Amino acid sequence: MLLIPAPLQDLIKSLSHLPGLGRRSGKRAALALLAEPAKLRQLQEALATVAKDVKTCTICHTVDLQDPCHICASPVRDTHQLCVVEQVADLWAMEESGAFKGHYFVLGGVLNALHGVGVDDLRIPELLTRVQEGKVQEVILALSASMDGQSTAHLIAKKLKPLEVKVTSLAKGLPIGAGIDYMDSGTLHLALSGRQHIE
Amino acid sequence: MLLIPAPLQDLIKSLSHLPGLGRRSGKRAALALLAEPAKLRQLQEALATVAKDVKTCTICHTVDLQDPCHICASPVRDTHQLCVVEQVADLWAMEESGAFKGHYFVLGGVLNALHGVGVDDLRIPELLTRVQEGKVQEVILALSASMDGQSTAHLIAKKLKPLEVKVTSLAKGLPIGAGIDYMDSGTLHLALSGRQHIE
Repeated sequence: MLLIPAPLQDLIKSLSHLPGLGRRSGKRAALALLAEPAKLRQLQEALATVAKDVKTCTICHTVDLQDPCHICASPVRDTHQLCVVEQVADLWAMEESGAFKGHYFVLGGVLNALHGVGVDDLRIPELLTRVQEGKVQEVILALSASMDGQSTAHLIAKKLKPLEVKVTSLAKGLPIGAGIDYMDSGTLHLALSGRQHIE
Repeated sequence: MLLIPAPLQDLIKSLSHLPGLGRRSGKRAALALLAEPAKLRQLQEALATVAKDVKTCTICHTVDLQDPCHICASPVRDTHQLCVVEQVADLWAMEESGAFKGHYFVLGGVLNALHGVGVDDLRIPELLTRVQEGKVQEVILALSASMDGQSTAHLIAKKLKPLEVKVTSLAKGLPIGAGIDYMDSGTLHLALSGRQHIE
């Protein structure tokens, strides 16, 4: 006799594989859903609707109800600037900031030897094709300020060189609200070397 | 125009409410499911099966494919010992340990003023009825070794007093593998006052 009923085992397994959840929290989540049938039903319905209605944009690879997505299809966005992000959640963060009015390209990750993410796992050929189409004048690499993010940025910059497009990356420095003594020395190095005149 | 498509918002909301997940990890989980349709389908099916097949045992309040559950229905378990646990996951942990061969009772939580859990939110009347039936000789309170767990244990012990049943609670002390200098002083107090002869 199984201690945990088989269907519940399956649910725990499915939930445990989600990023942010592990075996123990998967158990807790499954029991929480079981304790509240309304929430379980809600999650079921949300999954069904997402599976049916949400598409991946064939131009920028974000997710939306339409393909091309509403950003790629928008007539008011700046077609000269292309912002390269690792993942869809990063695109959302950029859009929420309201700082950028151009177009996006979702790379699908960054190089990571440890997790076996190589050049072929990223959408680099698609990015080159996109830039070759000729409208883009500046590629802004909005990748993580990590070792992996920066080595990916360098690789992309190298591959874009023959296309004679401007390639930039986001500034590194102190995040808003940061105290100097809470910052790591790498950040302080970058903040110092990138220091700016106070006008 | 919504930045995050509405159906995806719903899915993120459903996932964010699960214990262990918040708004940001809910986003990541939703995008991970979207990126792997097979996993999304698996989770959908697991939810449907659980909703259909998993029942709550009317005797001990655990979850199982049958009611009464296979522990309550078992002819070989010791009917004289009743182990009271806060939640189903605790019952699973006890069973996995193999340390207990009696019956269980899932209380449904412990008293917690902060989260508004009062006496009426726990299955204390059901527990008293269960013990009054007369077969139980010892009630083992396997509640958290926290302030809330222990005050709940004391309340239950008080309510069980008129029924003249033996009431015990799990020993407190060092967990296996613990180094003395990693333990909090409360645990050391309890470990010292509960010290045992070495035979």
